[in-house]
Amino acid sequence: MNQTQWIGGAGNGVPLPSSVALTEVCPRDGFQNICDWIPTETKQQAIDLLIDSGLQRFEITSFVNPKAIPQMADAQRIVEHVLRRNREENLGLDIVALAPNLRGAENALNAGVHHISYVISAGEQHNLANINRTHEASLADLAAITSAYPDMHVTLSMATVFGCPFAGAVSADTVLWLLSEALSRGVRDVTLCDTIGVASPRQTGELLARVRDTNPSLDVGLHVHDTHGMALANTLVALTHGVRRFETAAGGLGGCPFAPGAAGNSATEDVANMLWRMGIDTGVSREKLLTAVAFIRQQIQPNLMSHLAQARSYGEFSFWTEGA
Amino acid sequence: MNQTQWIGGAGNGVPLPSSVALTEVCPRDGFQNICDWIPTETKQQAIDLLIDSGLQRFEITSFVNPKAIPQMADAQRIVEHVLRRNREENLGLDIVALAPNLRGAENALNAGVHHISYVISAGEQHNLANINRTHEASLADLAAITSAYPDMHVTLSMATVFGCPFAGAVSADTVLWLLSEALSRGVRDVTLCDTIGVASPRQTGELLARVRDTNPSLDVGLHVHDTHGMALANTLVALTHGVRRFETAAGGLGGCPFAPGAAGNSATEDVANMLWRMGIDTGVSREKLLTAVAFIRQQIQPNLMSHLAQARSYGEFSFWTEGA
Repeated sequence: MNQTQWIGGAGNGVPLPSSVALTEVCPRDGFQNICDWIPTETKQQAIDLLIDSGLQRFEITSFVNPKAIPQMADAQRIVEHVLRRNREENLGLDIVALAPNLRGAENALNAGVHHISYVISAGEQHNLANINRTHEASLADLAAITSAYPDMHVTLSMATVFGCPFAGAVSADTVLWLLSEALSRGVRDVTLCDTIGVASPRQTGELLARVRDTNPSLDVGLHVHDTHGMALANTLVALTHGVRRFETAAGGLGGCPFAPGAAGNSATEDVANMLWRMGIDTGVSREKLLTAVAFIRQQIQPNLMSHLAQARSYGEFSFWTEGA
Repeated sequence: MNQTQWIGGAGNGVPLPSSVALTEVCPRDGFQNICDWIPTETKQQAIDLLIDSGLQRFEITSFVNPKAIPQMADAQRIVEHVLRRNREENLGLDIVALAPNLRGAENALNAGVHHISYVISAGEQHNLANINRTHEASLADLAAITSAYPDMHVTLSMATVFGCPFAGAVSADTVLWLLSEALSRGVRDVTLCDTIGVASPRQTGELLARVRDTNPSLDVGLHVHDTHGMALANTLVALTHGVRRFETAAGGLGGCPFAPGAAGNSATEDVANMLWRMGIDTGVSREKLLTAVAFIRQQIQPNLMSHLAQARSYGEFSFWTEGA
């Protein structure tokens, strides 16, 4: 049966890929949102298990003021560990670090990271709460980074694209304007983030259609939370709009300290499971990914948000290990 | 913007409806799975609040041996209450009761119910565990019901369509065979049930395409659980395949006593929220539905499975009450 007939039936096939890329954000977005200090060695062990599962892209840490976010104070040691493994085992990993400003970008580069994500919230009130900047100030800072480090791969992480916890609805015009301004300042790609997990499939589809219409060759990623249970439905719709890169967090960890009540990230294991059941490859070993998730549950956070971590297998029949 | 452009963009529009019907199954599927006895008056209050929210279709109880399922021992009083309200207020409700056999159908009819759901599991091992019958015995019993009560509206609730907790995968051929046999014995419509919540969107789409191909004018409903987080994604795909009737449970209550570990039903408030955000009408007042859910949480089950019941609103901006 045709790969795409399952949406809408014959005559309505929507092209779907044979593979997609997952960017694992648990080491940054997940660990940052756990209040207690996680020993660096524990983080490294979790990251090692995630690498072992076959994940290739990581948002690994944040080069941010440790007074503001003490959870990320070990950024340099985390990066050193991962880059050494990447080099020694020739893994070809894509290691991304969040850098909120020129200083962060400089620290990232000095640590050996050549790919940073730079966050601007589409909702300006959230931008002010999150990083204390207007849109104008954020864009000026972005320009300073790309001017100082023209070879740095800068990904725009556009937050609160589908709703701002303070201002409410965010217009697609604002999103397109901000994207255009950021592209003109040298960002190479964009990840659209539903920071508080309220996007509907229709909203996601309509916004992605507009972004694609105005930027047909742009690499657009999606980062969604599962607050209203629509994370996988939004992932599905994004697939039909050509999105091939998804940010997810093992165990569904994560949230936003300045968006209280936001549920966790779309869980890597839930997304990988759905894609696998749909015949779409992620390069991830599901068994090894669950091993990493079990480690995170045991050592870091007993209460995981993911569905798969909570679901039982049924007798002999593991829905995780059998084919669709 | 066209109602359907949000899937796959221009040129790939899939026809979507302006409205769909929700069948509220919390009074049967939800309350049956709560071990402690719920006072009949409390059930009636919950049902009244659900009716007040605008829901029109209910699986209201089960006419089953009270020794087997004591939770439904008050079936007659529940039905009396709802039918009286329906008559006195001229509400036009569709009141469905589950009837597992001829005796149950007789009791339903004597109580004034003219629409029953009759359950057969596509996985025969689950059918044996659930109602101690082979497929052959279930079909013979179905024929006895439709022969005895030819005017009774009988809906086939086909359980474990997307996976059986005992046998594992269930073939589409088995589903189509069972459906055909049941239709030849007089069932009027069918609800395909993902009893343990493992269907993937692709599996749902492919099965619905086959069911529609072989039964183009059949009214096909969907009943999914959220075990692996795919309930809303499956709902979305079903919409693209012409499904216009969904069984959901307020608060996400429910499960199956003979499928341990199955997560709750797709929550009425989560489904209504997604459909509303997509511009698809359900006839439900979201505020009143949440009032009913709050009552259920306070009086019946403090731990609700739904996402919306757990999600906060953000400041002034309620994602529940604002438009898409």
